[in-house]
Amino acid sequence: MALTLYPLKGLPLVKSGDDLSAILAHTLDANDLSLEAGDVLVVAQKIISKAEGRFVNLTTVTPSARACHYAEITGKDPRLLELILSESREVLRTRKNLIIVEHRLGFVSANAGIDHSNVSGSWGEPEDWVLLLPEHPDESAARIRKALQEKYGCQVGVLIIDSHGRAWRLGTVGVTIGLSGLPGVVDLRGESDLFDYRLRVTQVAAADELAAGASLMMGQAREGTPAVLARGFPYPLRESGLTELNRPKHLDLFR
Amino acid sequence: MALTLYPLKGLPLVKSGDDLSAILAHTLDANDLSLEAGDVLVVAQKIISKAEGRFVNLTTVTPSARACHYAEITGKDPRLLELILSESREVLRTRKNLIIVEHRLGFVSANAGIDHSNVSGSWGEPEDWVLLLPEHPDESAARIRKALQEKYGCQVGVLIIDSHGRAWRLGTVGVTIGLSGLPGVVDLRGESDLFDYRLRVTQVAAADELAAGASLMMGQAREGTPAVLARGFPYPLRESGLTELNRPKHLDLFR
Repeated sequence: MALTLYPLKGLPLVKSGDDLSAILAHTLDANDLSLEAGDVLVVAQKIISKAEGRFVNLTTVTPSARACHYAEITGKDPRLLELILSESREVLRTRKNLIIVEHRLGFVSANAGIDHSNVSGSWGEPEDWVLLLPEHPDESAARIRKALQEKYGCQVGVLIIDSHGRAWRLGTVGVTIGLSGLPGVVDLRGESDLFDYRLRVTQVAAADELAAGASLMMGQAREGTPAVLARGFPYPLRESGLTELNRPKHLDLFR
Repeated sequence: MALTLYPLKGLPLVKSGDDLSAILAHTLDANDLSLEAGDVLVVAQKIISKAEGRFVNLTTVTPSARACHYAEITGKDPRLLELILSESREVLRTRKNLIIVEHRLGFVSANAGIDHSNVSGSWGEPEDWVLLLPEHPDESAARIRKALQEKYGCQVGVLIIDSHGRAWRLGTVGVTIGLSGLPGVVDLRGESDLFDYRLRVTQVAAADELAAGASLMMGQAREGTPAVLARGFPYPLRESGLTELNRPKHLDLFR
């Protein structure tokens, strides 16, 4: 069976307080699509964050001395640094125009995932608004999944993704920041290969592989389609969470 | 338009010297598929390496003192370490059961991508055989692409992938190790977002996103389907190479 990734066209701009599950169902319908058992709906973090009202206006933020310190190193706005630090557990690297942190959700990312593009608030200047990541993306995914499963009467997965840079490779790729109902990592250790060897290194980050593929269909700029229906995900659906995908600090050789 | 990833079923076991382009075309045919303009054929490195005869029998390898040193640290076979070092520019990290290197091709990977599973040679014990990565994967991709373009009379891309671990996340994902005819990184910098901001961080590793998605459909063990047809790749095809995706050492903050 093939895997097909359908970008959902025509999703309206999402506002704080919107019922995202209803919007997604409506947009599926407008694309002549519905959900079937085993489907995974892949959603960009941005529209989750918007629906959950994770907007902050920088004029309301007072930077700490620590934020000002990192602002000086990076050349970034100290108020933005204040937000980045408040969303982070640890600062891993800084240099001009760059700050890489361990996010409070456990993954490593630039700017704690705080987003400036395609964001505007209800008052003041658009450029003063930024958008934090969802507070608990696994829970956001679970809520949307529950609503969609009730509507469509079948078991589906929901995957929330963002775009991350990587330590050793150029360009960003889509990665999981929250999930519900599909495996994060699939463990094939112990299965035999074609010559009856035991496979040794076979923990596949299935959710991240899907995140990357779906990200390809989301576009980045004006053409953005922040939701993609994945039909044909090759592994059985099951309960899961982001902790499956975060490498624990004691196993991380590259800090 | 959707992206569809068709795993090619029934690909025969590939042997040294096989005409892989002909085998791929035959297998496409057996799957009732052909290539259309804009398609990308994604191929696992393993069958490229096999066709190119990149087998080495460990009983023919004499480990150097340096290889023995790393064998002691990692607990791995010193003859395997000799091959890993000969395929590498630099050792980045070692510990029990693990060696992470910069491969001579410029990317960072465990074991220099040398593979032990699903490999067997023409003599001796199967467990003595290992498989190196293709010597010049970009050229391998270009050769296959040229043959397929001639056969199908249209412009396509060829992407050679492997599975890599990642610094901060668990589980492996498919990544590019060679490519021809599709962009490695797509640069969207300067395009406007929905609110007319300039996008800032918008270099998308499109080839790696496709590599990850296609890897999902390749399976890992007995069910392995080492080639996937991608139809609906959303960016224009163009000339490219692996150097687009390798982060240069002076930009790497995590060594």
